[in-house]
Amino acid sequence: MTGWLAIAGLGPGDEALITPEVTAVLAQATDVIGYVPYVARIAPRDGLSRHPSDNRVELMRARHALELAAAGGRVVVVSSGDPGVFAMAAAVLEAIESAPEYLATDIRILPGITAMLAAAARLGAPLGHDFCAINLSDNLKPWALIEKRLRLAAEADFAMAFYNPRSASRPEGFGRALAVLRAACGDARPVLFARNVTRPDQSLRIVPLTETTPEMADMRTVVIVGNAATRVIETPRGPILYTPRSA
Amino acid sequence: MTGWLAIAGLGPGDEALITPEVTAVLAQATDVIGYVPYVARIAPRDGLSRHPSDNRVELMRARHALELAAAGGRVVVVSSGDPGVFAMAAAVLEAIESAPEYLATDIRILPGITAMLAAAARLGAPLGHDFCAINLSDNLKPWALIEKRLRLAAEADFAMAFYNPRSASRPEGFGRALAVLRAACGDARPVLFARNVTRPDQSLRIVPLTETTPEMADMRTVVIVGNAATRVIETPRGPILYTPRSA
Repeated sequence: MTGWLAIAGLGPGDEALITPEVTAVLAQATDVIGYVPYVARIAPRDGLSRHPSDNRVELMRARHALELAAAGGRVVVVSSGDPGVFAMAAAVLEAIESAPEYLATDIRILPGITAMLAAAARLGAPLGHDFCAINLSDNLKPWALIEKRLRLAAEADFAMAFYNPRSASRPEGFGRALAVLRAACGDARPVLFARNVTRPDQSLRIVPLTETTPEMADMRTVVIVGNAATRVIETPRGPILYTPRSA
Repeated sequence: MTGWLAIAGLGPGDEALITPEVTAVLAQATDVIGYVPYVARIAPRDGLSRHPSDNRVELMRARHALELAAAGGRVVVVSSGDPGVFAMAAAVLEAIESAPEYLATDIRILPGITAMLAAAARLGAPLGHDFCAINLSDNLKPWALIEKRLRLAAEADFAMAFYNPRSASRPEGFGRALAVLRAACGDARPVLFARNVTRPDQSLRIVPLTETTPEMADMRTVVIVGNAATRVIETPRGPILYTPRSA
């Protein structure tokens, strides 16, 4: 039996956002591996072993997946959103680079709807022009690099999407990020806090940058900061947030 | 009859990348509107009018879609990729902002797999850490702003994805963009040229920045430039391109 490894994106939560490509590969899998809540999204069935693991053990999880594939398993590593955006694809490739015995593994990466694009779509098109995506976690990079990127992104007038803005173990960073942005942007541009986007308990909130507070975000929140031209249109159906194509 | 307007992303080309959400809304549509090759992806059926239009008439197309919805149509504006990324969502919202009679339109935006994420997944995870997305067309913004963003993105050490890098009517810009990047980056970091990604005639090519030429891209190409840490792993199955999570 020849094993393979697929790294698949489950999208932000709504089952109707899982691509048919991902659904098909999950139907062939012998093993599903990932962070507990993502593995929980995969229904149990005969012939499928589910391997949930804790957060922050990405490299260990990646090696486990490579071992199972080497042993002949049809292995799917599941990520929320898109596996290539602050998720498991890079971790698996790091594991391969450090363990040459896995270089010949049959690997596929299957894209998914990443949280920032789902969040943007729910309220308009705030990423409708040039934008950047920044992981605000300083678990793997120095905080100074994050601040530098925030300042330069503001100077470039990018719209910005932030992943992992704030966690119990990193309560301080997001407040510092907001302070950097308020100083660099100097205006009341709209900021979208999208929590559990596309799930039944989704919450969407637009707040002027000048009125943002750190408590508005947690690890289940993606934050989108407009550029200088991003605007809110009030409509009878609620606010629409968008960035013009000329911005 | 109450009309509505959905702005839907068809993904980069492979039908297996169209979300079930988009498939469901297309099944309910009375009208499909979009750029000729995107409308051509929707099969004809009884009860469905297809309205293909030329490139560069986005605002006219948006107004047409709003008129059809106001007249009771169940209208789907189709974009390639994700409608919120350099596509029709922002154009429709601009049209609504300029024509208040459409403010009450029942609008939904349905995300899709955008080209940069599909291209990244095909060869690894080059957007696996902080990155930006820039539309290189200067049809709607000054070229000076594009150059400024390129320089600041290089200084921030973002990986970068470029949409609309080069067209017959704008043959010069991409060469200038490459020159800016060569000067700003000063290294031979890998650049991915992904043309017609996920289609039968897909072409993927990794070229060191120092050896890139403008002819390597056209309007069907998405270009991904690594950051300073992006690397290529050579494997028996071909090269893998990725950006470490610590970069």
